[in-house]
Amino acid sequence: MKEAANIADGSPSFGARVHNKTKVAVIGASGYVGEELVRLLLRHPCAELVAVTSRQFAGQTLAEVFPRFSHLERTNELRFSEPEPAQLAQHANIIFLALPHGRAAEFAKPLLQAAARVVDLSADFRIENAKIFKEFYGDDHRVPELLGKAVYGLPEIYRKEITAAKLVACPGCYPTSILVPLIPLIRERMAKFGGILVTSLSGVTGAGRKVEAEYLFAECNESMRPYGIPKHRHLSEIEEQLSVFARERITIQFTPHLVPLDRGIITTIYVDLVEKIDGGSIDSIYEKAYGDEPFVRLLGDALFPDTKNVSGTNFIDIAWRLDPRTGRVILMSAIDNLMKGASGQAIQCFNVMRGYRETEGLR
Amino acid sequence: MKEAANIADGSPSFGARVHNKTKVAVIGASGYVGEELVRLLLRHPCAELVAVTSRQFAGQTLAEVFPRFSHLERTNELRFSEPEPAQLAQHANIIFLALPHGRAAEFAKPLLQAAARVVDLSADFRIENAKIFKEFYGDDHRVPELLGKAVYGLPEIYRKEITAAKLVACPGCYPTSILVPLIPLIRERMAKFGGILVTSLSGVTGAGRKVEAEYLFAECNESMRPYGIPKHRHLSEIEEQLSVFARERITIQFTPHLVPLDRGIITTIYVDLVEKIDGGSIDSIYEKAYGDEPFVRLLGDALFPDTKNVSGTNFIDIAWRLDPRTGRVILMSAIDNLMKGASGQAIQCFNVMRGYRETEGLR
Amino acid sequence: MKEAANIADGSPSFGARVHNKTKVAVIGASGYVGEELVRLLLRHPCAELVAVTSRQFAGQTLAEVFPRFSHLERTNELRFSEPEPAQLAQHANIIFLALPHGRAAEFAKPLLQAAARVVDLSADFRIENAKIFKEFYGDDHRVPELLGKAVYGLPEIYRKEITAAKLVACPGCYPTSILVPLIPLIRERMAKFGGILVTSLSGVTGAGRKVEAEYLFAECNESMRPYGIPKHRHLSEIEEQLSVFARERITIQFTPHLVPLDRGIITTIYVDLVEKIDGGSIDSIYEKAYGDEPFVRLLGDALFPDTKNVSGTNFIDIAWRLDPRTGRVILMSAIDNLMKGASGQAIQCFNVMRGYRETEGLR
Amino acid sequence: MKEAANIADGSPSFGARVHNKTKVAVIGASGYVGEELVRLLLRHPCAELVAVTSRQFAGQTLAEVFPRFSHLERTNELRFSEPEPAQLAQHANIIFLALPHGRAAEFAKPLLQAAARVVDLSADFRIENAKIFKEFYGDDHRVPELLGKAVYGLPEIYRKEITAAKLVACPGCYPTSILVPLIPLIRERMAKFGGILVTSLSGVTGAGRKVEAEYLFAECNESMRPYGIPKHRHLSEIEEQLSVFARERITIQFTPHLVPLDRGIITTIYVDLVEKIDGGSIDSIYEKAYGDEPFVRLLGDALFPDTKNVSGTNFIDIAWRLDPRTGRVILMSAIDNLMKGASGQAIQCFNVMRGYRETEGLR
Repeated sequence: MKEAANIADGSPSFGARVHNKTKVAVIGASGYVGEELVRLLLRHPCAELVAVTSRQFAGQTLAEVFPRFSHLERTNELRFSEPEPAQLAQHANIIFLALPHGRAAEFAKPLLQAAARVVDLSADFRIENAKIFKEFYGDDHRVPELLGKAVYGLPEIYRKEITAAKLVACPGCYPTSILVPLIPLIRERMAKFGGILVTSLSGVTGAGRKVEAEYLFAECNESMRPYGIPKHRHLSEIEEQLSVFARERITIQFTPHLVPLDRGIITTIYVDLVEKIDGGSIDSIYEKAYGDEPFVRLLGDALFPDTKNVSGTNFIDIAWRLDPRTGRVILMSAIDNLMKGASGQAIQCFNVMRGYRETEGLR
Repeated sequence: MKEAANIADGSPSFGARVHNKTKVAVIGASGYVGEELVRLLLRHPCAELVAVTSRQFAGQTLAEVFPRFSHLERTNELRFSEPEPAQLAQHANIIFLALPHGRAAEFAKPLLQAAARVVDLSADFRIENAKIFKEFYGDDHRVPELLGKAVYGLPEIYRKEITAAKLVACPGCYPTSILVPLIPLIRERMAKFGGILVTSLSGVTGAGRKVEAEYLFAECNESMRPYGIPKHRHLSEIEEQLSVFARERITIQFTPHLVPLDRGIITTIYVDLVEKIDGGSIDSIYEKAYGDEPFVRLLGDALFPDTKNVSGTNFIDIAWRLDPRTGRVILMSAIDNLMKGASGQAIQCFNVMRGYRETEGLR
Repeated sequence: MKEAANIADGSPSFGARVHNKTKVAVIGASGYVGEELVRLLLRHPCAELVAVTSRQFAGQTLAEVFPRFSHLERTNELRFSEPEPAQLAQHANIIFLALPHGRAAEFAKPLLQAAARVVDLSADFRIENAKIFKEFYGDDHRVPELLGKAVYGLPEIYRKEITAAKLVACPGCYPTSILVPLIPLIRERMAKFGGILVTSLSGVTGAGRKVEAEYLFAECNESMRPYGIPKHRHLSEIEEQLSVFARERITIQFTPHLVPLDRGIITTIYVDLVEKIDGGSIDSIYEKAYGDEPFVRLLGDALFPDTKNVSGTNFIDIAWRLDPRTGRVILMSAIDNLMKGASGQAIQCFNVMRGYRETEGLR
Repeated sequence: MKEAANIADGSPSFGARVHNKTKVAVIGASGYVGEELVRLLLRHPCAELVAVTSRQFAGQTLAEVFPRFSHLERTNELRFSEPEPAQLAQHANIIFLALPHGRAAEFAKPLLQAAARVVDLSADFRIENAKIFKEFYGDDHRVPELLGKAVYGLPEIYRKEITAAKLVACPGCYPTSILVPLIPLIRERMAKFGGILVTSLSGVTGAGRKVEAEYLFAECNESMRPYGIPKHRHLSEIEEQLSVFARERITIQFTPHLVPLDRGIITTIYVDLVEKIDGGSIDSIYEKAYGDEPFVRLLGDALFPDTKNVSGTNFIDIAWRLDPRTGRVILMSAIDNLMKGASGQAIQCFNVMRGYRETEGLR
């Protein structure tokens, strides 16, 4: 199969219309998040993927490691290399870090010093407070001087800041599914700040491509279980972000569950309301907050979110219900953990950083 | 394959040791709950299944409808019949109703009048209050005079009452997974009665063998979603039971989710504590409540429940965690919705009603 | 969410570059194949979907029936209608039939008479011989006069004929997975025509969106089974096509299996060779046959096809092995049954019929 | 939960009726096969499990490693130990080896010398011919002197030999699913010996509890693929066994596939018939061969085998079809790979070796 043979003349050509491609690189491209990022960048009309790194696969081509990409011509040329920040920063303008927590921090500093812009998909720069980082991640932060410099990569909330950011810290999958529905109610001061409670269900790719017994097919299939209770690491960034909009310290309850499907997160959030409110007002709050957002779909109080409606897309679907029996509002959201929960969101940030159409490469 | 050929002489024989088998019948045996009940009764050393009914399959043998049972000799003789209460009560002493809600009530009355004892797996007799039944199930109850006569079939809570009961109303799958972990904290007055919140995840058999588009494989696989919010029908029996032990009216929040696996329920319960308590005290409460129970496994605060550990069994696994950040205790449970959540529990009740060993036919 | 808001000026715009969109309609758009077709057409830069029909959903919008499409603006306007051929042919130039076998034939005739071109995804026009149609499908063909007029919609084999076709009969999913790997060996007369044997495995969407008990989640999950043995309907078109290239009547053995995943077909084909041949020669045969094909990926004798590498794509992955012990060559292929096995292939035919780039709307 | 509390007096007691329990041990009890074996032995009325070994889990109790067994009292006492043959042979009369191929051979010799009887679930003693072992497994056999001493543990074929065997080599899962349906046609000389072709589909536990990337949930789910073509290791024992009954060397074609479910094997076998035969004669052949077998269910030519009908059981379901178009008979079988394909069969052999009822502990 030869790609070139298919570019028939006369019919519309995709490549021709882009003039200013941005050179990009992905460090740590062998996990699920990295693979999804590579897939998106290879098809992105404004991005040119110049390097991918992986210690495990160094020397192999993209096509060899990810056979599903093998029809794309460049995947037979582009080889995984060892990650060398200085060299990468010479060839790429924006560099994505898809590394485990802790390792990303080491790379960010030399890349930024070499004038590259960095989109980090790990947790390393999501938290502003070094003490909280240590409390939740166990180790001292390796480059605490960068902590306050990163922009939290949630375009629906920080679009303006992302535009000029040097270092973007993409939120985790759980935080995205929680913060997008919750922030409007906090910001509008409709939610009581105490007593917020969140339950999430995650597909197995949420754990990354960890080769551990507990993620084997026969361990996960026909199994479901809560885990990480009561103090999952993502609480740190969720609470820090919520506290910004509440203008006071917020503590929430959060329970994740592992569920046997590949992709998707379902989050259910329980909020006590400050005062009685009708459904129309809630609709208005969300319409005002997200009515123009390209990746937020508001389902209102009629439909339920379902992971299969967002799988493979960058959407977050949001629904809500008022419960007159308990006086609570129940918020529900669905995302694809590898897209809006990770790589899709990173591309969305990339588009914002470069002034491209925000949906570019994501439809 | 001939079953008879295998009863080798000399080797231990199972059938020989039972002297007083109870004659039983299952009305509505073609759903998942009915099929599981038939499976358990066919292997139960103290039960003799004399009739199974199903309008859909009337005339067919058990082996034809359930090929997985085809090796059991009687499944080639026993045929589904039309359900005729008077006749069934003549031949069986205990009759199981595995019918949809609403239809069970019609059968219960003539069966009881004909002196049969009834184990009902529908919701029809779980609630004592006819008004609440109507509020949650939409219709007037057809035999309200029986509402106060049924015993709620949760042996861990109502063992003594079940012993002599004429009519046992087996709890639903969600209520079982919620009430067993929650009642001890209510009874010991450790839980604040306001603000209790419950999230449950259910496998697809929990919806029954409904031939509807939303339960097709390709609709459920790689899908998960909340549903039945904010007022799922099971809330009625859950709140009624909790209120008995609280000695005041309790209202809770409950959110079920549909998840792509065959069997299992995971329930997570959030409870505000009346006062600070240490883990040892919680252990003691559960040890006292369930330390001698044959089907309760206490996992304490070290392990997490997982549906795969209870699948195919009648166990309920219970774990808990204290959250010092929020002052809550989080209770977690796992059951097989078709076993402890339905048919296994019905057999457990049957054993209690007949004075058999409670684990008979369930190990 | 408003789509319009996202078309930022300055950034590349998708809609602007297409000048000659083709108006298309889909009759019978509510099954899995129809849904996939609608998804592809809505995103196709050269197609304008002007009508979708469904008796079941008449009056509802696309967004209501397929919530996953709800972000696309036209899905909130475009409503399912009752299928009326005359009216459809006035508004659309190419009409896709995604109807059950038997019903498609009725629609094709008036559409063709009204000068529309038709792409039929049913089996109704795949077979040239009316007797064979009756033998395999049980009924007399309703418009036998059209049988010889259709072109078999496999672009890798009949590209030239499809270009000018009025009526294209898209192959079924099994036939595609079998014919593409097998025809080159037949055509090159390397295969013995007797004794060809094929095993296929299909995901559950292969059965369509049939609301029948056997396709419920809990019936398919953790289940696998052969079916349709020994004379599956698809044998008729497979054997007719093979016989064309063999220039004699070929009879093969074919066994399909149902397997618990959403999408995908794996086919394994066993062929006795006319003479000893080395791997290089087989490589050459396939390179010659498909080296320039945009949707064929040749894996050679090193890799194995895997449905997950083709899921959501229009590719067919083909591998082969020589077995020196038996003297056979074993061909293996993987496709997505809804894409290359149905709707993707229909779009590929559409592109050929209209002279668009063959990969348009399929990457 | 205390097991003791449940042994109510008066009700039938299970333990009381067994007088001569056999002491058994399992070496290598931490894989899926070992775990299933432990589960079966713990519930076997005539077996007393005195030791389980695992280098990985040495020191931990059964309940800790397998939480699903934690309700069984002895699982809190019985700890995994390092495997020491001499010591084990002192305490156990029959020792099961659930070790990887190659490692089992080392243990068998000292165990047999110490007068223990051995049931080996690895491939080490399934083949009589040391040259063929080396051809398929790559290494020289470590104790070739034992090769001719083992009995192939397929009770339906070698019941008499198993009765007195010192060393039983349990067949693999694929061979069981192939040999049981195929041997009667070979033995009756109805099958042409050339040209036999077999396709099998296996659930993921068939690969064992291997912690490798390719068996992760997200790699197997929504994936299916052929593998091990053209010369899977199990061909060695399949062909050796078939050749015994053919009284000449038989070579077959065999293609295994990996499919996303936990348990189960579906095998389809294509056989050219020596002469035309009617369905009644095939029925007679199987009725004669297996009509009295406790674990063979003959489905004839009306039903299809389905893994969900055998899952968790020791049955092999066998169906067949005559294809008048090709003159072949197609045999189909379904087993649970961990039961009839491994541990269940080992227990069946154990029952035969000890003269217990063959179904003991397996119903």
